[in-house]
Amino acid sequence: MLRFATIILLATVSLAQNVVHYTTTNSNVKYLFATAEPVGHLKSGDILDTNTLDCFGNGLRKPGDTLDMAKGDNPLAGPFFVEGAEPGDTLAIKILDLQVDGDTGVGAFSPGFGSINASHYTPMLEKSPWQERVWFYHIDHAANTATFKALDSDFSVKIPMHPFFGCLGVAPANGEARSSIVPAEFGGNMDSPEASVGNTVYFPVNVKGGLLYLGDGHAAMGDGEAAGSAIEVPLKARVQLSVIKGRHIEWPQFENDDAIMTVGAYRPLEDATRIAMTELVHWIHKDYGLSEMDAYELLSKVGKVHLNEMVDPNYVVVASIEKKYLPVKK
Amino acid sequence: MLRFATIILLATVSLAQNVVHYTTTNSNVKYLFATAEPVGHLKSGDILDTNTLDCFGNGLRKPGDTLDMAKGDNPLAGPFFVEGAEPGDTLAIKILDLQVDGDTGVGAFSPGFGSINASHYTPMLEKSPWQERVWFYHIDHAANTATFKALDSDFSVKIPMHPFFGCLGVAPANGEARSSIVPAEFGGNMDSPEASVGNTVYFPVNVKGGLLYLGDGHAAMGDGEAAGSAIEVPLKARVQLSVIKGRHIEWPQFENDDAIMTVGAYRPLEDATRIAMTELVHWIHKDYGLSEMDAYELLSKVGKVHLNEMVDPNYVVVASIEKKYLPVKK
Amino acid sequence: MLRFATIILLATVSLAQNVVHYTTTNSNVKYLFATAEPVGHLKSGDILDTNTLDCFGNGLRKPGDTLDMAKGDNPLAGPFFVEGAEPGDTLAIKILDLQVDGDTGVGAFSPGFGSINASHYTPMLEKSPWQERVWFYHIDHAANTATFKALDSDFSVKIPMHPFFGCLGVAPANGEARSSIVPAEFGGNMDSPEASVGNTVYFPVNVKGGLLYLGDGHAAMGDGEAAGSAIEVPLKARVQLSVIKGRHIEWPQFENDDAIMTVGAYRPLEDATRIAMTELVHWIHKDYGLSEMDAYELLSKVGKVHLNEMVDPNYVVVASIEKKYLPVKK
Amino acid sequence: MLRFATIILLATVSLAQNVVHYTTTNSNVKYLFATAEPVGHLKSGDILDTNTLDCFGNGLRKPGDTLDMAKGDNPLAGPFFVEGAEPGDTLAIKILDLQVDGDTGVGAFSPGFGSINASHYTPMLEKSPWQERVWFYHIDHAANTATFKALDSDFSVKIPMHPFFGCLGVAPANGEARSSIVPAEFGGNMDSPEASVGNTVYFPVNVKGGLLYLGDGHAAMGDGEAAGSAIEVPLKARVQLSVIKGRHIEWPQFENDDAIMTVGAYRPLEDATRIAMTELVHWIHKDYGLSEMDAYELLSKVGKVHLNEMVDPNYVVVASIEKKYLPVKK
Repeated sequence: MLRFATIILLATVSLAQNVVHYTTTNSNVKYLFATAEPVGHLKSGDILDTNTLDCFGNGLRKPGDTLDMAKGDNPLAGPFFVEGAEPGDTLAIKILDLQVDGDTGVGAFSPGFGSINASHYTPMLEKSPWQERVWFYHIDHAANTATFKALDSDFSVKIPMHPFFGCLGVAPANGEARSSIVPAEFGGNMDSPEASVGNTVYFPVNVKGGLLYLGDGHAAMGDGEAAGSAIEVPLKARVQLSVIKGRHIEWPQFENDDAIMTVGAYRPLEDATRIAMTELVHWIHKDYGLSEMDAYELLSKVGKVHLNEMVDPNYVVVASIEKKYLPVKK
Repeated sequence: MLRFATIILLATVSLAQNVVHYTTTNSNVKYLFATAEPVGHLKSGDILDTNTLDCFGNGLRKPGDTLDMAKGDNPLAGPFFVEGAEPGDTLAIKILDLQVDGDTGVGAFSPGFGSINASHYTPMLEKSPWQERVWFYHIDHAANTATFKALDSDFSVKIPMHPFFGCLGVAPANGEARSSIVPAEFGGNMDSPEASVGNTVYFPVNVKGGLLYLGDGHAAMGDGEAAGSAIEVPLKARVQLSVIKGRHIEWPQFENDDAIMTVGAYRPLEDATRIAMTELVHWIHKDYGLSEMDAYELLSKVGKVHLNEMVDPNYVVVASIEKKYLPVKK
Repeated sequence: MLRFATIILLATVSLAQNVVHYTTTNSNVKYLFATAEPVGHLKSGDILDTNTLDCFGNGLRKPGDTLDMAKGDNPLAGPFFVEGAEPGDTLAIKILDLQVDGDTGVGAFSPGFGSINASHYTPMLEKSPWQERVWFYHIDHAANTATFKALDSDFSVKIPMHPFFGCLGVAPANGEARSSIVPAEFGGNMDSPEASVGNTVYFPVNVKGGLLYLGDGHAAMGDGEAAGSAIEVPLKARVQLSVIKGRHIEWPQFENDDAIMTVGAYRPLEDATRIAMTELVHWIHKDYGLSEMDAYELLSKVGKVHLNEMVDPNYVVVASIEKKYLPVKK
Repeated sequence: MLRFATIILLATVSLAQNVVHYTTTNSNVKYLFATAEPVGHLKSGDILDTNTLDCFGNGLRKPGDTLDMAKGDNPLAGPFFVEGAEPGDTLAIKILDLQVDGDTGVGAFSPGFGSINASHYTPMLEKSPWQERVWFYHIDHAANTATFKALDSDFSVKIPMHPFFGCLGVAPANGEARSSIVPAEFGGNMDSPEASVGNTVYFPVNVKGGLLYLGDGHAAMGDGEAAGSAIEVPLKARVQLSVIKGRHIEWPQFENDDAIMTVGAYRPLEDATRIAMTELVHWIHKDYGLSEMDAYELLSKVGKVHLNEMVDPNYVVVASIEKKYLPVKK
């Protein structure tokens, strides 16, 4: 009896959770979050089983390789069309599984990019700019670590892996097409460690089908992504896509069993933080029934603010609150 | 033999760790971080046993009390003179014990103050500004919680307490006197949850004796101190003060057994973050021997950035790295 | 002999300066700076004689009209393809003539947009936001004035007109398509009063033909475009387009007989200013031969900084120096 | 009869405009805006006739002199006590005459200071920082010019002089003492070219007597004071001090026959601009009777924004409107 029940359950799941497989290669990647021809179609509730290339198009593999060997910046898998998604809806992506695809991760300092060196959007007169450097990280799948090896001294240390998508987003509103290095209202290059297994990310649907893009896997990353890169890796990924009809959001959100999280993706950092915080107050007010002032006060006591990155064309901040501090959802 | 040794050790400690008691009241508090007449003198290694008033001078005690009943903003205990501290040295404050002093905490929204409302330094034309609101938190010492009670609906929730000093700092450099609501190079109103038991904070010594001030206890606080207040409480405190001769720092630092942490206290948030990050790279480079570029890369993989507050005249960010990721200290 | 020479010269000019006429209407405007099908082709040196609609698609004409009557935001004439323009070149647009096209200008306050009210990218919790307001300005062509009439009191005043393009730009790099409300490296919604008769604007060519767009005429505007609009007007325009082969620029520039000017278009305002200033130092260094430090020092004594706008998705600053302070151009 | 009347009038003026002479030297200067012992007392309406040292205490005089020869940063004349000035009043300083005191001006690049190089509050990791440079400017009093001479090439150019006070301010509120390199609510190191002959500057009175300080003369300066210095000069100055009883202001203001001007002095630049703009809207609303929204709209059409400096611990912006655009003052 028990066995029979299990079979029925699996069948049910199988019906609802059709799995779409897609293989991403350098010949089918995109470099824009834009309205483009879908490479796959899914029904709401379907699972996407795919892979992503690292931010260099897997072009740097071993010590001595240089940044000019990168095959484009932040190649994206997709776009994936989700049936029934219409502008004004919300697209939910539940991240089911992420595995580092390979044995090597890459970190890089690229002149003109980074949080505490002169950069394209924060230029300084420089007498002698820092030059390109590349670090390679050995991935130990069994131990779930990546190893940092210093370039200028004899030191190495193992870093626990926490794989996540650096890039995750949909086609922007108003017909815009944005480079895959940009995060904004449509998600994009958010570099959010929150884009990891166990979390669901929500995006505003701006065009029919939503048009999801994924890429830029990270095996681990520090807050702010200080020097401009994470441990950059290809990923194997399983995500479930669902359409939430009639729920309208302005900015991306994350959610899991324990917390609700809002994303601010803009410059300056104050504005990114203000966006995330106001969105979180509005969410609490709307779905959990606290007044705006009570929600504001509560955040002032138990809210969290996570600086994701301060290096991309927009900066990304995630504000969050644990559900245990909130009333029952309305 | 062992027992004998222990006794000697205790005797030594007892000699070094003289305890200075000081009682803080509304009649002896200060409202400036400045060069002023000390209220107590300690030797390096001595322990200060004192109390602090809450940010309202303990003026608000029960529902119905209003902000005009506050006895000054951020009253400070001190200053305490530490013998041997000279400009160019570093003053270390090890926080040994912090207890909430009383049964009530206070949160308040004050018009013109806060991260996502128009404020003194981020003014907006407002048609109808938000008005003052005050929340009272019952402290349960046994359970180590403070209870939030919504003002506009019937909801309450317990918040675990993490007591820390909102204000901790020394006399500023160059003869400046700064209001106790300001954080900057001298520490001050940092609102750093890192100023809690188990951590040591380092300040640059700018004047003879250092002149330590303490105050503005917080029972708990969210990242960014969104609405402008924590759970504001009086504290009972024990801290050990030590002079580190010849160690020169530019900005405050924290340290515990597990991590080193740097403080950036300025506006905009980008600059606060840049200060904390560059100071952390320099610290790793100087004391742990990694090259600046290796340290920068390592932070990009495992560094932490904690937004303390985004409401005071300067914003405060703490950057940190766990020692387990660093080489052995030189 | 002299007379004969003059005739030949005129004939040459006439040959070089072919005039292309194009009529812009609501049915052929665009709302993106993007790579799109050209509506006209010009040779380098040709003159474009066209018209632009106001930022509301000429939808608001008289007191009582409301913002929901706008036919799109910032409709653009174009794109115009300039033969010979290749990525890496510079496109020069000399503004020969601008006339306000009609008798009415419009100003508007739109909730969520403006420099000193809560906005989309600088959100605040608001108890009661400001509501939409629209002002109409009578244009007196003979006197060259537009008349402000207060809505809430009996006051009016004449403002001298200085017509310029709010939007002027080319197709962005990397395949991006940007909304016509955005200024950035490709120009766009710069709201630069410098885009007026007598000045030449330079843009980086990112795609074959450059693909110039024009629109969003302003009869007059204050620094910063504080409340979010200028005196918005349709324009009649004559501009000369030229390709400068092999001159590569990163950001837009202006030039006239008296000055060189650089554009920074980003957030925060510090970064927009840094971009404009560093570009100006580099320009002086490259074309006028001063060392970077001498150029920096000279700007510190005679440079100008003009805040164009602080309301759009990016802010725009123009830095400039008068040529009389520079060495002879190399 | 007429002649007699004139004589009486002159006599009255003479009585009201008592002239107080004070000689400033390196032995009586101050380095703080603070509550301190006055060096002179004036009645409201009196004229102060004094001199100021340059920002280096006149320590650098000729090519080859270096920054370590500076006798302090921004030495100040004062403080001057104005009788009748009480907290809540406004102190008006009418600038009657400013003359460069000597034949040499100085410009300097100091590592860690400047708008487009790594600095104390905008630190960057630098491989090789720029080194100190000093420029000397010959003052031609008859031609009213100062001559820039390039250090790295054979070029010189004459710059018209526009002398103004870099430092002008009063004792801060709340007992603060601020370094003479800081501008804020109390004025201070505003580096405002508006602090020149023909203009009146208004400061909030924070302490009895107001306590005016002056210094840091500039013979000419570019917008933003890009590299961190103006043409630094000693000055001879005549200013008239008046108390405006019962007029309360929050930030400094300027006024002349043609315009009203407000000062924002903070970081980031957005906030400095927001302060100046909101103060200007409030001023127009209060004294000239336009509604806030009409004033906002009018600024959006004819307002001016002047970046004074983007190098000091706070940035300074002046917003202004010409009186010809305003209703008659109430």
